[in-house]
Amino acid sequence: MGIPSDPKLLVESARAGNRAALARLISRIEHRNQDTRTLISLLYPHTGKAQVWGITGPPGAGKSTLVDRLVSRLRGEGKTVAVVAVDPSSPFSGGAILGDRIRMQKHTADPGVYIRSLGTRGRHGGLSHSTKETVLALDAAGFDVVLVETAGVGQTELDILRLAQTVIVVLVPESGDSIQVMKAGLMEISDVFAVNKADRPEADKLVRELVANVGLNPHDENSWIIPVMKTEAARDVGTVELLGEIARHQEYLEKSGKKAEKAKVFLKEELVDILIEGLRNSLDSVLGTDGGRDLLERLYRKEIAPYEAAKVLSGQAGE
Amino acid sequence: MGIPSDPKLLVESARAGNRAALARLISRIEHRNQDTRTLISLLYPHTGKAQVWGITGPPGAGKSTLVDRLVSRLRGEGKTVAVVAVDPSSPFSGGAILGDRIRMQKHTADPGVYIRSLGTRGRHGGLSHSTKETVLALDAAGFDVVLVETAGVGQTELDILRLAQTVIVVLVPESGDSIQVMKAGLMEISDVFAVNKADRPEADKLVRELVANVGLNPHDENSWIIPVMKTEAARDVGTVELLGEIARHQEYLEKSGKKAEKAKVFLKEELVDILIEGLRNSLDSVLGTDGGRDLLERLYRKEIAPYEAAKVLSGQAGE
Repeated sequence: MGIPSDPKLLVESARAGNRAALARLISRIEHRNQDTRTLISLLYPHTGKAQVWGITGPPGAGKSTLVDRLVSRLRGEGKTVAVVAVDPSSPFSGGAILGDRIRMQKHTADPGVYIRSLGTRGRHGGLSHSTKETVLALDAAGFDVVLVETAGVGQTELDILRLAQTVIVVLVPESGDSIQVMKAGLMEISDVFAVNKADRPEADKLVRELVANVGLNPHDENSWIIPVMKTEAARDVGTVELLGEIARHQEYLEKSGKKAEKAKVFLKEELVDILIEGLRNSLDSVLGTDGGRDLLERLYRKEIAPYEAAKVLSGQAGE
Repeated sequence: MGIPSDPKLLVESARAGNRAALARLISRIEHRNQDTRTLISLLYPHTGKAQVWGITGPPGAGKSTLVDRLVSRLRGEGKTVAVVAVDPSSPFSGGAILGDRIRMQKHTADPGVYIRSLGTRGRHGGLSHSTKETVLALDAAGFDVVLVETAGVGQTELDILRLAQTVIVVLVPESGDSIQVMKAGLMEISDVFAVNKADRPEADKLVRELVANVGLNPHDENSWIIPVMKTEAARDVGTVELLGEIARHQEYLEKSGKKAEKAKVFLKEELVDILIEGLRNSLDSVLGTDGGRDLLERLYRKEIAPYEAAKVLSGQAGE
């Protein structure tokens, strides 16, 4: 199968199951130009069917092994799965995800699984936007589940998790010490906790702490009570039970109307991202002109203050 | 001394050395409203004198102990120092910075030192902007050195480091393993390497690796060659030598004209941040109106595509 370059044919080809076309499509979305807009407009009517899950947790928690297990089980149920791995943005986070991707390669021969890594370096805030639109493309391509995995270390990664319907936070017994501090943040983003490497000592202590913390969250009979699950991804222990809780959360979202609510938050952010990207591009152009350089020079010489200069610039960018 | 609430008097009071006024001023800058603009306009003419240093490194590298030593030495030279600690944005990063702040408390009785922590939670991309304007305020308040410390784990933190003139990357021998992967990123942001806990085995190996990597960077006779320094912050070993290299880098920036260049990049980003913040606010307003909600509803029902809807929204926000 060849890869058509016409946007409409490319989208059709990707939706018909041509994985090379899908890969090309996503690369073109990452280019962030006029073509991106055309592609998103063509894809958008076909979105809204996939379940979008987020998986995060500290480095070394075994996220990727768990993702691997989840993918195998989902395939066993006949479901198609796309995995979007958001590589760490920091130079300090090391090579974990790279190695993990290699581990996932056993799935690459399976046409029901699609794996894509997105890098964060040099994106300057645009990654969550790119990731969101990649998820739209995978949804439109017909995957039953789109799994977004992040190393969960920065603001960008937390932004990205907001696009998921169900967020699974993976912890390990060793994480126990820092739980006190991270409590609030974890409760905010998590829909399901997975205490991985649960055969290790201290696992039960962490489970108890998490359950106690969940209980402290204000809730009524309509609230989702975050379940705390024990897994041993290395031995495929607890995977089925974890999937059960994810399914239960998806059902909860449907019944409570929260699924539509989340979709609207996602779309709202997409609109804001689109307009901010547009503004950034137009400012880049204006600041590259003589007028822009002159304004910057005046600002540097303190002949004008930042908010005044921004006002002038805004007028130029709007013209 | 009372704290005046009038912006002009508040700025004057902060500049005259009233630390309570300075604290209030920074809090008001963090509020991000019309008052913020007034304050920045008043502060801006007094900026441009401070040296701004950034310090980053992986958790556990001993950054804060090193900052503590640098502050003591700078005080010994009669210089005033402000420390801006950017708290980790991630729920996984634990409580290191919190504890570190307590360690710094010995300086709080010293009127020549000012310490401020900025949190990242819930800021949604606005933190680097807030941090930048806080640095402007500290610069205008007359500090000789403004030291910005980040846990260095995410895109936001890297954005923040861009506002520093001199960035010190602190590593420890144990970081050695991951050097291969982080090489490129580190070389990009670092002006000076500090290999801390240099009494540990493997320290020399890390130093050699870093020196070799620095050598691989393309350079000519006008380039800054990133020095690799050994420190033992716990015993105050190597602090003076590190300060020497920082001073040499500042001199290099002055002589090469790179200081002005960096200042202009800083100002350019400040302009972009101001306009993006303005756009975000105006979109929040518009999306909260009946028209905005209706547009979102139509988008949700797929009667309109995202980029089309963004265009409509942009028209509404501009009115």
